[in-house]
Amino acid sequence: MALPQKHFKRGSTKPELPEDGVLRFFSMAFCPFSHRVRLLLAAKQIPHHKIYVDLIEKPEWYKDYSPLGKVPALQLAGIENQPTLVESLIIAEYLDQQYPQPQLFLTDPLQKALDKILIERFAPVVSAIYPVLTCNPNAPADAIEKFENALDVFEVELAKRGTPYFAGQTIGIVDYMIWPWFERFPSMKITSEQKYELNTNRFGKLLKWRDLVAQDEAVQKTALDVQLHAEFQKSKTLGNPQYDIAFKAKY
Amino acid sequence: MALPQKHFKRGSTKPELPEDGVLRFFSMAFCPFSHRVRLLLAAKQIPHHKIYVDLIEKPEWYKDYSPLGKVPALQLAGIENQPTLVESLIIAEYLDQQYPQPQLFLTDPLQKALDKILIERFAPVVSAIYPVLTCNPNAPADAIEKFENALDVFEVELAKRGTPYFAGQTIGIVDYMIWPWFERFPSMKITSEQKYELNTNRFGKLLKWRDLVAQDEAVQKTALDVQLHAEFQKSKTLGNPQYDIAFKAKY
Repeated sequence: MALPQKHFKRGSTKPELPEDGVLRFFSMAFCPFSHRVRLLLAAKQIPHHKIYVDLIEKPEWYKDYSPLGKVPALQLAGIENQPTLVESLIIAEYLDQQYPQPQLFLTDPLQKALDKILIERFAPVVSAIYPVLTCNPNAPADAIEKFENALDVFEVELAKRGTPYFAGQTIGIVDYMIWPWFERFPSMKITSEQKYELNTNRFGKLLKWRDLVAQDEAVQKTALDVQLHAEFQKSKTLGNPQYDIAFKAKY
Repeated sequence: MALPQKHFKRGSTKPELPEDGVLRFFSMAFCPFSHRVRLLLAAKQIPHHKIYVDLIEKPEWYKDYSPLGKVPALQLAGIENQPTLVESLIIAEYLDQQYPQPQLFLTDPLQKALDKILIERFAPVVSAIYPVLTCNPNAPADAIEKFENALDVFEVELAKRGTPYFAGQTIGIVDYMIWPWFERFPSMKITSEQKYELNTNRFGKLLKWRDLVAQDEAVQKTALDVQLHAEFQKSKTLGNPQYDIAFKAKY
């Protein structure tokens, strides 16, 4: 049974989901937090159904799955009560324990805690990016400075670790959890008034890392084109996000 | 070597901490997120040094421990690089793995994820409580309603679980992670304009749970008196938080 490739809206009928025990993944195609989970599903090759949700005009039935209306959400269909998980990091950790190939979180409690803290340190980047991304004329003058200062933490940390990936010689959880924003950064050149790009001197290690991660299979499988990200961002800034343009692409 | 029982301020000299391998716990005495970690340290009887930090006039040296100036923070002194952990839940999970007696997180990945999601659902309670707690004349008219709606989730969940504690027959991680706010709720009767108390009909199960948890040894060991919470809250509302009144008590 094929689920429709569209974002369900307010007023839509609750989709009938197949009772086949397969995971049900609720997301919005351009949402970077949903992208985190999509990366894990791809990296671990976990079968799942995809249900897309319009985040402005949320379908009334969506609260049955995610009481606060958040995406991503993951319903476990094959078990009693069919519980739904929310919060990208909680979902990621659950998937990593339940589907351990390849293992992405470190097992040492201290190293695992330090990685989680580093992922938390990405929150200031996420909140600083929007004034830069959206060509907002009311954006504060120091928007770019704030964004770059927040990102510095990751440039410094990568230098400190001295490895190609944050996880070491192969890709790991920190790499995947911050990647969605790096996929979107190049769209800033198109959407921002300043034609913003990451400075190659200041962010040399991160840019090298970006080129490396871009070759990862799960990253490629879940990628959306930079033009598409820019087009979505522009429509969002105008107050009318065009969610379904995601399906123009192969994704 | 005894560390001073006071909150370190801006301009203070960085305290000399003993190189004895004992954990260093940075907190603010009335901070509910710090209280979460204090409960775990008490429940697991983990030796630690206590360093208190003034959150308004933060000591300049504190960023060496917690780059964003947050409490709680926990420095692991006995190991290489002496890393510092931040974020109460990340610290809690680390402590639970490193000091497994008594074990507080569930080990089943799904049950553990569902408990973490429930703990995340407490965030709306935390953000809704302040307009009620602080006798703020500009508080929105629906402040109490919002607070009670957020808290309903926990009343309903406790009924659904059908156990005395959220964790089951004995106390566990959800109980400890939400407890700090329940210790503070009775102070609302003193500080709020409406002399607010939790309604015994609407929150019957939670109030019974509160009486039960109040008897826990770690809870008692870390408790501050309701009058003291109220006094602190009043001083904070006036813009001059009196952190050091915590040491009036036995704590």
